[in-house]
Amino acid sequence: MATEGEKVQVKLLGATLSPFVVRVRIALALKGIDYEFIQEHSMHLKSELLLKSNPVHKKVPVLIHNGKPVCESMIIVQYIEEAWCNKAPNLMPEDPYDRANARFWAAFVDDKLFPCLRGVFTGQGEQLQKAVEDSVTNILLIEEALRTNHCFAGKAYFGGDQIGLIDIALGGLSAFIKSLEKATDSVLIDPEKMPLLTAWMDRFFKSDGVKEVMPDVAKQAEFISTRRASMISPPTN
Amino acid sequence: MATEGEKVQVKLLGATLSPFVVRVRIALALKGIDYEFIQEHSMHLKSELLLKSNPVHKKVPVLIHNGKPVCESMIIVQYIEEAWCNKAPNLMPEDPYDRANARFWAAFVDDKLFPCLRGVFTGQGEQLQKAVEDSVTNILLIEEALRTNHCFAGKAYFGGDQIGLIDIALGGLSAFIKSLEKATDSVLIDPEKMPLLTAWMDRFFKSDGVKEVMPDVAKQAEFISTRRASMISPPTN
Repeated sequence: MATEGEKVQVKLLGATLSPFVVRVRIALALKGIDYEFIQEHSMHLKSELLLKSNPVHKKVPVLIHNGKPVCESMIIVQYIEEAWCNKAPNLMPEDPYDRANARFWAAFVDDKLFPCLRGVFTGQGEQLQKAVEDSVTNILLIEEALRTNHCFAGKAYFGGDQIGLIDIALGGLSAFIKSLEKATDSVLIDPEKMPLLTAWMDRFFKSDGVKEVMPDVAKQAEFISTRRASMISPPTN
Repeated sequence: MATEGEKVQVKLLGATLSPFVVRVRIALALKGIDYEFIQEHSMHLKSELLLKSNPVHKKVPVLIHNGKPVCESMIIVQYIEEAWCNKAPNLMPEDPYDRANARFWAAFVDDKLFPCLRGVFTGQGEQLQKAVEDSVTNILLIEEALRTNHCFAGKAYFGGDQIGLIDIALGGLSAFIKSLEKATDSVLIDPEKMPLLTAWMDRFFKSDGVKEVMPDVAKQAEFISTRRASMISPPTN
């Protein structure tokens, strides 16, 4: 923590289009924390500051608070909640069981859904089709949870009346999901089969703290299309 | 939480040899929580209770506390810490930065190290060799952290003077690592290159709350050898 006379400094090493960086920006915006955003410009030429701050994974986002780096998006979000625990809103419920439930679905997004979405990003032909099907299977499990899980069924957000851990975990990926749909001409969020999730996503996109930092879907879709094209025909020099 | 007159009930659905179940048993033992252990007998024929309690992953461990299921080993360990927060020892540090550090290395064990160990489990020939090398690379990063990370350098455990989150995450896998070495005739923990980790593992194995629940290495190695043999020559009926 800052000593007297020392200015509290928060820096975020990030990249505008990264869904994992978006998560951290949402958490910082909701808590009303001022920070300096330091853009990493290239995935290939990483900055000295990034390599020094996250020597294990060498990835954004990294939050640097009073000179100390915190890495991995959902660990950063929990850090923000705990380091600024006196600042509303609470990003985690109070009850231990509800907290475990929040961590469970946040981990589900990272461990089960995201690998499928990455498959949509990189896949072609049958592999793409399979990745879309697997993504839809996992998204339907989230729709089912929205219908039945006592922590968030019938609520505006997974966090209840306000945005919480799962909203940030899934919501941080939501522009990426829309961009993937656009770039691959796939349907991942089907409004007929996923009415609750569709309504949640609309609500989430329009929320204060979210709409200001959410990547532009058209721009992100273009980025994804360019990357996908380069995977088929990598540049020759 | 239990209402008056209702007995607090803790049940653990598990399998004796599962490294993930071991993590939960260590946390319960350290906190001195009595529980009923319900053995899942087969990976193929899952019990009704397991399917009902963990419909998403259908895997042990599941902790059932007052009838409510909590899934995923490290989420369960954090739940145990929070639901029994007044019972010593604390499995998590107090300081938000140290907590993020503990979560970071616990996640490293699951996200980076474990996939390599699984590769050692299933691999043959060159694939096995590659998985061993990748495992060693990751274990060396943990050795380096033991030497330099301000949270645990020079301490008896990653948790400081007592066992904490990282000890449980890595330590739960430590019998499995020894068994893998035995079953595949590989060296994963090299005492010369990893003196701090070797000393930590010796200490950890002998600790109260750990030694009582740690799987027998010879038995687990035999199990792994049998499974590996069945992958090469699957039974014909």
